Amino acid sequence: MRILVIGGDGYCGWATSLYLSSRGHDVTIMDSLVRRDWDREHGLDSLVPIASTRRRVDEWQRTSGRTIRFQQTDATDYAALCALIDEVRPDALVHFGQQRSAPFSMIDREHAVRTHLNNTLTNLNVIWALHERSPQTHLVKLGTMGEYGTPNIDVEEGFITVEHNGRTDTLPYPKQPGSFYHLTKVSDSDQIYFACRIWKLRATDLNQGVVYGTYTEQTALSPALANRYDYDHIFGTVLNRFCVQAALRHPLTVYGKGGQTRSFLDIRDTVRCIEIACENPAAPGEYRVFNQFTEMFSVEQLADRVAAVARGMGLACDIAHIENPRTEKEAHYYNCVNTNLRSLGLEPTPLSDETIARLIELARRHADRVDLELIPPRVTWGGAAQREGALAGANPAVA
Amino acid sequence: MRILVIGGDGYCGWATSLYLSSRGHDVTIMDSLVRRDWDREHGLDSLVPIASTRRRVDEWQRTSGRTIRFQQTDATDYAALCALIDEVRPDALVHFGQQRSAPFSMIDREHAVRTHLNNTLTNLNVIWALHERSPQTHLVKLGTMGEYGTPNIDVEEGFITVEHNGRTDTLPYPKQPGSFYHLTKVSDSDQIYFACRIWKLRATDLNQGVVYGTYTEQTALSPALANRYDYDHIFGTVLNRFCVQAALRHPLTVYGKGGQTRSFLDIRDTVRCIEIACENPAAPGEYRVFNQFTEMFSVEQLADRVAAVARGMGLACDIAHIENPRTEKEAHYYNCVNTNLRSLGLEPTPLSDETIARLIELARRHADRVDLELIPPRVTWGGAAQREGALAGANPAVA
Repeated sequence: MRILVIGGDGYCGWATSLYLSSRGHDVTIMDSLVRRDWDREHGLDSLVPIASTRRRVDEWQRTSGRTIRFQQTDATDYAALCALIDEVRPDALVHFGQQRSAPFSMIDREHAVRTHLNNTLTNLNVIWALHERSPQTHLVKLGTMGEYGTPNIDVEEGFITVEHNGRTDTLPYPKQPGSFYHLTKVSDSDQIYFACRIWKLRATDLNQGVVYGTYTEQTALSPALANRYDYDHIFGTVLNRFCVQAALRHPLTVYGKGGQTRSFLDIRDTVRCIEIACENPAAPGEYRVFNQFTEMFSVEQLADRVAAVARGMGLACDIAHIENPRTEKEAHYYNCVNTNLRSLGLEPTPLSDETIARLIELARRHADRVDLELIPPRVTWGGAAQREGALAGANPAVA
Repeated sequence: MRILVIGGDGYCGWATSLYLSSRGHDVTIMDSLVRRDWDREHGLDSLVPIASTRRRVDEWQRTSGRTIRFQQTDATDYAALCALIDEVRPDALVHFGQQRSAPFSMIDREHAVRTHLNNTLTNLNVIWALHERSPQTHLVKLGTMGEYGTPNIDVEEGFITVEHNGRTDTLPYPKQPGSFYHLTKVSDSDQIYFACRIWKLRATDLNQGVVYGTYTEQTALSPALANRYDYDHIFGTVLNRFCVQAALRHPLTVYGKGGQTRSFLDIRDTVRCIEIACENPAAPGEYRVFNQFTEMFSVEQLADRVAAVARGMGLACDIAHIENPRTEKEAHYYNCVNTNLRSLGLEPTPLSDETIARLIELARRHADRVDLELIPPRVTWGGAAQREGALAGANPAVA
């Protein structure tokens, strides 16, 4: 299949592009590389050094004999997006090209607005471009399980049948997003569903859980193919961050009580899920939602798992509960359905001690690149008041 | 109360500003006047001539002895918005300052994006400005009944209690907006609800039905206080448009079967609803939704009502069913709750033959200003294909 991957230089995008190419698909990456600018702007860097995109695709060619085309184009540029779609004529368009950090979107008004404008403009451009240039292309859009929030009932895949006052309808599942970033993903979903209804676009909305790991068979082939490993307070996701803390004998910092339960998956399952979605396209006019995760854990459970593995490796490991910078429930019901991808053939990779150990090892190997100052949360949901008060002593090791 | 009305020069905004001022509130209008630019851009004009905003507020001072401050400021300009909030220190901020036409948002990608950027940026700016400058101010935000779409169950006011697999939760009511414009309002609602949760803002989201009429006691005091009367295919709402058609002995153009049922209210009830919301503010941290309408009608019912009144006035009046430019159900269940405003004291003004006759009379008086070419729909939800095909003979009188 011809597959256009927008945001193919990012954490999930790069691993996916390599995987799809390795499976024989004809992959084109479109990426503005703005994420690398954001790293510089906030003084962040991947724990594992990552090569330039040009070097990455050259190395992939050398290593695998396969070609991934790369074009540095911003999806907010509609003319450029249309031109590339005309050229590639993709069977599937995989859209990863968005700002994906909740804390980034909560820094201040400017970051909330920037997240909203970037994410929504890329989404509107993508659906309009498919409508005007390539309506048969299957849109595979990355959403997030965070769109649902933590309702007190089971989370279904995108829609729920509601009985009310003796009548019944199947309606979009109610959303309770927990950050300005998550709000953009809800807005995207609503827009895509609408585009499928009025233009008969075909779309799969992948509500992805929190991704962990950096290793895939392809990224491991060469250091120039390595994936990024974010551990900082803005882009670092919880399991990856815990593994860096464990590697440095830093206490694992659990936000609040740690009862926050979320959906998770290994990045090796991410890339497989995207392939499954591409190879089983939605029908014209169909908007479908797949909950893309394999397991549910509380933050406390993850800390315990990492601490146990770290201790088994001879690393002293404490768990520290710090003031929660986010506004979220710390003890709640959470049960989400994820049968759609399973029924299309996904075989989950459960979280293993081996995966945790590999992440800790990776962090130890690059320990000299870790900036501990980047780990404690500095972005609070409550804003300035919260920042100046409760979080003053947030990081037990650094403060 | 000190009340800041963003978008106070518009159709609902102007009538509301006058009414609140007449009731003794201290009103400041902030408006970019971009709506008047959009009229020029699309060759549209109010059927009833409207004075400049400066002239309007001067005339109000002369007529009533009361002062309405006016500042031409765009709410997309954050610094200017904050400065005005600092100066006014409003008890209530009423936010009408958005692009409010569904067809406008469906013209093409550029108009969809412009609608989204304008509406979302003003909304984000308003909530951030209240958070950073004036968290005790009560936000009164204009939403739309169109956020809900036409589900097969009763529409509640913002939230619904769902029982699912033996568990229960009260969740945001599922939304199915029917245009890019309506999508922005859903996004606004989600953002405001979030802001109330994390920042303890206080907000009332008014999901307003389709407004008809132009007459209020205050707008009638002088021609320079007259409200706008839109009858064109972009900004004209259905009842107002039918009355213009009747006045000109033009067939009333019903889109499709006419079974589309919607919520309606008289503009005299709009202004009263805003006052009720302001005078009964939400509590800190409270996000509440009022469905702001008084009656439900199908488009066919409205056409019949207008035709009957027109015939009673000696005007021949036909009803013509034309191809529906929108993608929407033309026969569906529709039953919406509207008890919140009633329980706070709203006494509805039901649609009367007198109101219809007054609108027809007004249109006859300004018949020389009507451009019939502006009435038939030229914006289609399906885009170019639909436009070139089925709508070729859409307007029986003009075609």
